[in-house]
Amino acid sequence: MAQPALVVEAGDPFMTSDIVVEMVKQLRALDTYDTYEGWSEEKIIDPLVMTKERKREIPIIGDPDEITLARVKAYYNSIASLIEKKGGLMAVPVINITHEGFGRALVLVGKLIVVDKVLRDVHRFGFPSLEDLASKTDATIEKALGLITTYREVAEA
Amino acid sequence: MAQPALVVEAGDPFMTSDIVVEMVKQLRALDTYDTYEGWSEEKIIDPLVMTKERKREIPIIGDPDEITLARVKAYYNSIASLIEKKGGLMAVPVINITHEGFGRALVLVGKLIVVDKVLRDVHRFGFPSLEDLASKTDATIEKALGLITTYREVAEA
Repeated sequence: MAQPALVVEAGDPFMTSDIVVEMVKQLRALDTYDTYEGWSEEKIIDPLVMTKERKREIPIIGDPDEITLARVKAYYNSIASLIEKKGGLMAVPVINITHEGFGRALVLVGKLIVVDKVLRDVHRFGFPSLEDLASKTDATIEKALGLITTYREVAEA
Repeated sequence: MAQPALVVEAGDPFMTSDIVVEMVKQLRALDTYDTYEGWSEEKIIDPLVMTKERKREIPIIGDPDEITLARVKAYYNSIASLIEKKGGLMAVPVINITHEGFGRALVLVGKLIVVDKVLRDVHRFGFPSLEDLASKTDATIEKALGLITTYREVAEA
């Protein structure tokens, strides 16, 4: 398969957003087969951008492949890692995905569930733009930090 | 392989314990291949009893087979179901087990984690006796109900 053109351009301001920086770090760390060796950060994060055009080229029904699963896991691992950094308490990601690409992603802090997302159509996982990835993720993290503040005792339990 | 002799005897008082009744129900409900057709309740629950003798016959390291995984899932589904019945709030089991038989079992009530167990050696999953199964499970459920009482607002969130 020919490499598709990149959507993310060098100098995109959201390349320095918390989630993009963390995800690039996580994807590189988990890259046991050196898939990403020599790749720019833009190229590593690019498949997370699921434009309408890209989405159209993917069947509506499909099983996620290993690399897509690894990206989804890296995404929720990154969210947990950012919540931990900002909230100061250990945050644990729990990700359950069936072979058909359905499932659930949780982030746990103590006895508190701070992120709880239903996953579907994981084979088409992505965000319309890097900006959208950054803003949706920020909202998820803010909500999680709010829960930790409200239910501090449970988060520390 | 010859059928091993049953450990659970007819009339065992723990056959009527909450967890055994619920597990037999769940295992029958999930029995899509009619494995349990014509089996007594004692025979269905019997493999959950992992006596020292039985344990010795199972390799220390091993991958759990489908039927063992189904039993572990039925066990935590049953716990969730009993917590829901006694606590009056929806309880959701989340079970993650790797092919190597390691993982985590959670029961969630609202935004509260009421059961959180590390799973290991799932291929040897079981309890020394039915009495032990019943008393350990009762303790798990009591603890969960205590958490729901203490953190009611989170359990209802």
